[in-house]
Amino acid sequence: MTTYFEGVDAVKYEGTETNNPFAFRYYNKDQVVLGKTMAEHLRMAVCYWHSFCWDGADPFGQGTFERSWHNASSVQEATDIKMDVAFEFFAKLGLPYYCFHDVDVAGHLETPDELSNELARAVDRLQQKQDETGVKLLWGTANLFSHRRYMGGGLTNPDPEVTATAIRQVRECMDATFKLGGENYVLWGGREGYDTLLNTRLSTELDNFGALLNKVVEYKHKIGFKGKILIEPKPHEPTYHQYDFDTATVFGFLQRYGLEKEVHVNIEPNHATLAGHSFAHEIATAVSLGVMGSIDINSGNYQNGWDTDQFNVDIKDITLALIELLPSGGLDTGGFNFDAKVRRQSSDAVDLFHGHIGGADCLARALLAAADIIEKGEIEAFKANRYKGWEGDLGKMILSKETSLADIADHVKTEGINGKHNSGRQEYLENLINLSIK
Amino acid sequence: MTTYFEGVDAVKYEGTETNNPFAFRYYNKDQVVLGKTMAEHLRMAVCYWHSFCWDGADPFGQGTFERSWHNASSVQEATDIKMDVAFEFFAKLGLPYYCFHDVDVAGHLETPDELSNELARAVDRLQQKQDETGVKLLWGTANLFSHRRYMGGGLTNPDPEVTATAIRQVRECMDATFKLGGENYVLWGGREGYDTLLNTRLSTELDNFGALLNKVVEYKHKIGFKGKILIEPKPHEPTYHQYDFDTATVFGFLQRYGLEKEVHVNIEPNHATLAGHSFAHEIATAVSLGVMGSIDINSGNYQNGWDTDQFNVDIKDITLALIELLPSGGLDTGGFNFDAKVRRQSSDAVDLFHGHIGGADCLARALLAAADIIEKGEIEAFKANRYKGWEGDLGKMILSKETSLADIADHVKTEGINGKHNSGRQEYLENLINLSIK
Amino acid sequence: MTTYFEGVDAVKYEGTETNNPFAFRYYNKDQVVLGKTMAEHLRMAVCYWHSFCWDGADPFGQGTFERSWHNASSVQEATDIKMDVAFEFFAKLGLPYYCFHDVDVAGHLETPDELSNELARAVDRLQQKQDETGVKLLWGTANLFSHRRYMGGGLTNPDPEVTATAIRQVRECMDATFKLGGENYVLWGGREGYDTLLNTRLSTELDNFGALLNKVVEYKHKIGFKGKILIEPKPHEPTYHQYDFDTATVFGFLQRYGLEKEVHVNIEPNHATLAGHSFAHEIATAVSLGVMGSIDINSGNYQNGWDTDQFNVDIKDITLALIELLPSGGLDTGGFNFDAKVRRQSSDAVDLFHGHIGGADCLARALLAAADIIEKGEIEAFKANRYKGWEGDLGKMILSKETSLADIADHVKTEGINGKHNSGRQEYLENLINLSIK
Amino acid sequence: MTTYFEGVDAVKYEGTETNNPFAFRYYNKDQVVLGKTMAEHLRMAVCYWHSFCWDGADPFGQGTFERSWHNASSVQEATDIKMDVAFEFFAKLGLPYYCFHDVDVAGHLETPDELSNELARAVDRLQQKQDETGVKLLWGTANLFSHRRYMGGGLTNPDPEVTATAIRQVRECMDATFKLGGENYVLWGGREGYDTLLNTRLSTELDNFGALLNKVVEYKHKIGFKGKILIEPKPHEPTYHQYDFDTATVFGFLQRYGLEKEVHVNIEPNHATLAGHSFAHEIATAVSLGVMGSIDINSGNYQNGWDTDQFNVDIKDITLALIELLPSGGLDTGGFNFDAKVRRQSSDAVDLFHGHIGGADCLARALLAAADIIEKGEIEAFKANRYKGWEGDLGKMILSKETSLADIADHVKTEGINGKHNSGRQEYLENLINLSIK
Repeated sequence: MTTYFEGVDAVKYEGTETNNPFAFRYYNKDQVVLGKTMAEHLRMAVCYWHSFCWDGADPFGQGTFERSWHNASSVQEATDIKMDVAFEFFAKLGLPYYCFHDVDVAGHLETPDELSNELARAVDRLQQKQDETGVKLLWGTANLFSHRRYMGGGLTNPDPEVTATAIRQVRECMDATFKLGGENYVLWGGREGYDTLLNTRLSTELDNFGALLNKVVEYKHKIGFKGKILIEPKPHEPTYHQYDFDTATVFGFLQRYGLEKEVHVNIEPNHATLAGHSFAHEIATAVSLGVMGSIDINSGNYQNGWDTDQFNVDIKDITLALIELLPSGGLDTGGFNFDAKVRRQSSDAVDLFHGHIGGADCLARALLAAADIIEKGEIEAFKANRYKGWEGDLGKMILSKETSLADIADHVKTEGINGKHNSGRQEYLENLINLSIK
Repeated sequence: MTTYFEGVDAVKYEGTETNNPFAFRYYNKDQVVLGKTMAEHLRMAVCYWHSFCWDGADPFGQGTFERSWHNASSVQEATDIKMDVAFEFFAKLGLPYYCFHDVDVAGHLETPDELSNELARAVDRLQQKQDETGVKLLWGTANLFSHRRYMGGGLTNPDPEVTATAIRQVRECMDATFKLGGENYVLWGGREGYDTLLNTRLSTELDNFGALLNKVVEYKHKIGFKGKILIEPKPHEPTYHQYDFDTATVFGFLQRYGLEKEVHVNIEPNHATLAGHSFAHEIATAVSLGVMGSIDINSGNYQNGWDTDQFNVDIKDITLALIELLPSGGLDTGGFNFDAKVRRQSSDAVDLFHGHIGGADCLARALLAAADIIEKGEIEAFKANRYKGWEGDLGKMILSKETSLADIADHVKTEGINGKHNSGRQEYLENLINLSIK
Repeated sequence: MTTYFEGVDAVKYEGTETNNPFAFRYYNKDQVVLGKTMAEHLRMAVCYWHSFCWDGADPFGQGTFERSWHNASSVQEATDIKMDVAFEFFAKLGLPYYCFHDVDVAGHLETPDELSNELARAVDRLQQKQDETGVKLLWGTANLFSHRRYMGGGLTNPDPEVTATAIRQVRECMDATFKLGGENYVLWGGREGYDTLLNTRLSTELDNFGALLNKVVEYKHKIGFKGKILIEPKPHEPTYHQYDFDTATVFGFLQRYGLEKEVHVNIEPNHATLAGHSFAHEIATAVSLGVMGSIDINSGNYQNGWDTDQFNVDIKDITLALIELLPSGGLDTGGFNFDAKVRRQSSDAVDLFHGHIGGADCLARALLAAADIIEKGEIEAFKANRYKGWEGDLGKMILSKETSLADIADHVKTEGINGKHNSGRQEYLENLINLSIK
Repeated sequence: MTTYFEGVDAVKYEGTETNNPFAFRYYNKDQVVLGKTMAEHLRMAVCYWHSFCWDGADPFGQGTFERSWHNASSVQEATDIKMDVAFEFFAKLGLPYYCFHDVDVAGHLETPDELSNELARAVDRLQQKQDETGVKLLWGTANLFSHRRYMGGGLTNPDPEVTATAIRQVRECMDATFKLGGENYVLWGGREGYDTLLNTRLSTELDNFGALLNKVVEYKHKIGFKGKILIEPKPHEPTYHQYDFDTATVFGFLQRYGLEKEVHVNIEPNHATLAGHSFAHEIATAVSLGVMGSIDINSGNYQNGWDTDQFNVDIKDITLALIELLPSGGLDTGGFNFDAKVRRQSSDAVDLFHGHIGGADCLARALLAAADIIEKGEIEAFKANRYKGWEGDLGKMILSKETSLADIADHVKTEGINGKHNSGRQEYLENLINLSIK
């Protein structure tokens, strides 16, 4: 068997004292934390697109990576080499999952029929690779944004012929995901949005999107797919306004079309920050609204206003998200998918290992920190005390369905209630977080 | 009668050729545009707080305005002088409405009882002033953010005593608004949000907010108030995250608590831009979701990341919002409230006139532009053609409740459908907008 | 002669009453404004890259434009067709200038020798086209950012072999520009900056850049090139930090390496806003620092944090810049280069006309507005009055070289000086601007 | 002696295993790191304004802190109590330095004479307090932004009477700082900038600022003050554009007026991020330009666009800045001044301890991390290798003053040089940083 990543062996956990840059220092998959192994908590996945499809091109320059398959003589040859290399990488890295778009594995093809045929061929090879390596599919998704026909959207295109083409692609990618044992199916609304309202019927597009998402859910049940349907919020880019702006917006949309019990969100830190939120905010919101699904783990760069999709090496950022996530039961069918790319200047194949190993170790280290915070219980105790009034008589009276606004107001007047302020102790609480990160 | 604005007479429409800086050049209240007068379309209001309560202080410096009432010897004296001056201004400016917070007219008072008493006194004087001048109340609102007790929120405070105090204030301000013939009642979620998740139970706070908003609506019906209840979206400031982030978020919240038919939004351009949206986007979204209420007209400064609340003098910005708003029937009980303040350096009393006159003329000019665009119909015709496929067989089939995802996908395959892209003509459409602004 | 833009004739000035979308309504090149013709004031140029090189691809999708040359069978064939079409466009549009990167006209080539040869061939054809059409070259520039070798910078690369290659390219592009009668030579620091300080020696890179820019200036004089050398500020993108952040930063850099009299800036509105400035600010700064050179006219989108390079259709934005620029004498060898691209969805060839015609008309309309403001003189008079104290005794004493800090402080004490505040009248002044935009 | 902070004793280093929230866990002042004690490296200071002057008010609400002196019966009583409490805090906290504005210690007074008198009185008491506690003055500064007269700037005001008043204030505050043994003198350009160019003569204001800063430097030498004069960059807020935008802008300004050897910068992380930079970038820039002075340590909140002045608890952020700072020799007369405030909701006196203790421990922990990185030397070795070509023949030839652009270009051609790209290894280097943070 040929080897693409020559000189890099299977990545092992070696602890913090190792000097080996190709070892995990914190991610010890069988280590038990808060009653589950690290692997069970984190359910990490490698994404196909950033690592094996992107060639390092950006809007200002050509590709820098020069991977062998970028210059293959045919789409088929390219997808085959790419798949061999991808699974060599997955296997060496030793994380349990991967994720893909249909076009990542089938190639960018001009017509729907060609895509359909190549996807079928790819699914057979993927099944074989999964069997050989034990790597599983976290989720699949149809790319409805790269082909020029989708420049004005896929499921929300002004032209029903384009939308119909998109629907065929979604159906076939759902079938592929199902066949490969995928644990979720994702819709990222790449160009579901607008660049200018001057040529856009917002209401029509939202209604169409709602109607079609209902058909997606119906189809899922029909074929017996047990995984979650996930929508991935993002505020803008490539369009100037994306309909799936953030978790709260998606939730409102889902309710409007009767889908809030059926569809969950796939949260991405870089999308959170582009929307003006923290990663932890998006997790807390999704948990609160009952739509938490999966995570595309990465980070942006606070000095730049676009989606930089970097490996998230900010341990505190992840820790703060995990203390919102873990008490709710953690990820169910979801996982931490490394939707992150090595920088354009990280042009060697080994850089893919550095990115993923650093990312996995940060997740593990954040998991240990979050577990420490949860086990100590100081923050939770502080909150319990801060909100305890709501379990008392006044709190219950205020919230009782029997009580009217006037009843409460009269009670305040009669009893001479005059609420006081109490310190929120933010600095004390922030100090606690730092003490748990080791 | 004493005069505060000496040397400024009632502001009249004098057309574009006048040299008088204290005249309207475009706002001609009785001029008919698209079948209604300008006054009926725009329903302009002056806000009490920025013009008569703020003294020009900012986080880095003391007040600069030195209005006579800022150094009054008692809260009562200050509110009385302020009210006299405010109504002199309203009357001279000649716009039909004003808006207030309870504390604007009653003063900032330490206890709920004091506030209650002073509000009652203020309402009597306001009624008299309204009768004398013919100026009407567009909306009232309770200030649940300035008193220190509200530092952690009003309706979403961790302490039910504070929330109870807030409820009394809301009830009394609703009563005052109703008594004064106010046409709407607003809730701006000043500190309904959080600074850090470390001390916040987001779910509890949202649930409390939902429960209490239901009581507000119930109370409105009970007292027979016919106006709209309005929530004002804002993404952050003063809190780091406000629950009423933007229109889509508010809509999701309203649905969750069964209020989407009962509560509407009060949109502010500066809040829109802070949330990463355009003013037109927020209007289009509210119209589409059926929650359009009123407008706090102002603008931010794109070079600064906080709420600058400037007079909106960007005619195109308003025009783009109006072409989303007018076709839906325009403002119902809502209006254009100048939630804008003269700059801290605009320290003379006459600057208040410059700000409001410029703002009113921009609204009028934008109205003329929007009417021209709508009457010409070119943009609407472009859209109709772009979306016409949805009225054809394929469009109808796709959206039919009878059709499954698989049906559509099979149809695409059988018929060989392969959607194409068509130019969105953004530059052509943008040129049309400019041609209508005169 | 074959025609690419079938059905579009030479664009003429037809005034505001025309219905022809392919006519100028405001740009009347021979119309005299403030003593010069519109053409002399605006010196408009079409850029080669956005209109003729970009195929509509973005980081999320393939090209949408399908211009004939994008699928040519060789680099040579592509550049030839492209040049024919570009000059057909320049000629029909009737603007006086164009601008290019070496690779726009020579093609993206693997080796320096190939580029050198193809550039020579292109220069001959360009000379011929210029002669045939009368279109002139505003400026040329070497593309030091698209080839993969430049991923870590051109003139600031860590590897001197890359820098040396870049120098050859600059020299040859300067020669080409000189030969074609170009009126300026531009350096845009595409990847002169860094993505992470962890692999960057900032001091070394700045020193190298300063040393090499001195050699560029020396070479300019040696070959007798009379045009300006221009640096184009941009804060980030593609790199996370660009050394030429904004005009003030560039000025500091130029002074540090003794170049502030030799090098000027090429200001772009979209770069200004990405840096947290307004377009007018960058112009005012460049004028004040004596480094005003040329303008890449475009605009960004305030809702998005990357370089969107749209046609600038914001008349007020341009007006505010012009009232800073025109009193200083206006553009000298510089011009208004449309560094703007039609949106990715504007996929038809005619969209190029809509973009440029709208852009030219906005410039013309802004010129008329700026001239009106300057001729009325109200704003200038306001400023003169506001600063008049500096011409009085106290002002002169403060600024005198003879006076020490202590002298002034003692004078203040003795004379009992206690400065007062005076209204800055921002709203009044903003109203004046709107009244001049017609 | 009365005690304000009852129940809090002198804060001691107790190591990481302590449970005492009022102890340092990492800041061990005598611990030697890279050849100096932590105290010598960090030179920490407490600022007077945020902790002892601010009452917790923000633009949307009243003060929340209710410190005893906020309701004192006179300015004198307030400043006296405040000073007692401040020095109790400084002494208990045990950090070596403090910093002040004149008005922090003298009070906000209406006239220059009053301020002058009160400052003199305050200086006497400060001297006594310094003697009693051993706490030293890191720097003083004159507040030229809070009084209404400064609404349009201090040293850059349009009215020379205001500027003259500002000069007196600067002179007296420099004298006070000198007398108290202050180690630096700071100018933060609070309102040195503009809100609108429509009423601003940018060139005049910059020239005045340059002339007056020269007088400040001259005065420093005259009185024999040995400390540094520091300018504090900030991009905006309170003005919409501040002249001292960032370090690079300040450097350009200093050169223009011949001051780049005389004046240094006081860098603040929150100002860095508002300007679109990282904290490390500003440090690296200041070091590279030779103007590094001191640090106002704090952080902003990436989800909000204004100066939040939080305690910086981001260990990595500080570590990345320290590895730029320490190799240059570190802070000379500068220090780490906690220009940070407890959140408005942190309304108890003890919250001041939590904020400062957490901040000091983060600085100490970052110092340990930076020392580890520097001692390991891996990052420096990577850079040395990356740039080694500049020490070779080609590198030297390129940079030689003897070599012209044409010489280099000819050499490239003759030798067939064709630069290649090499991986920048960003992910590998980022992983190294995380491994050193413990």
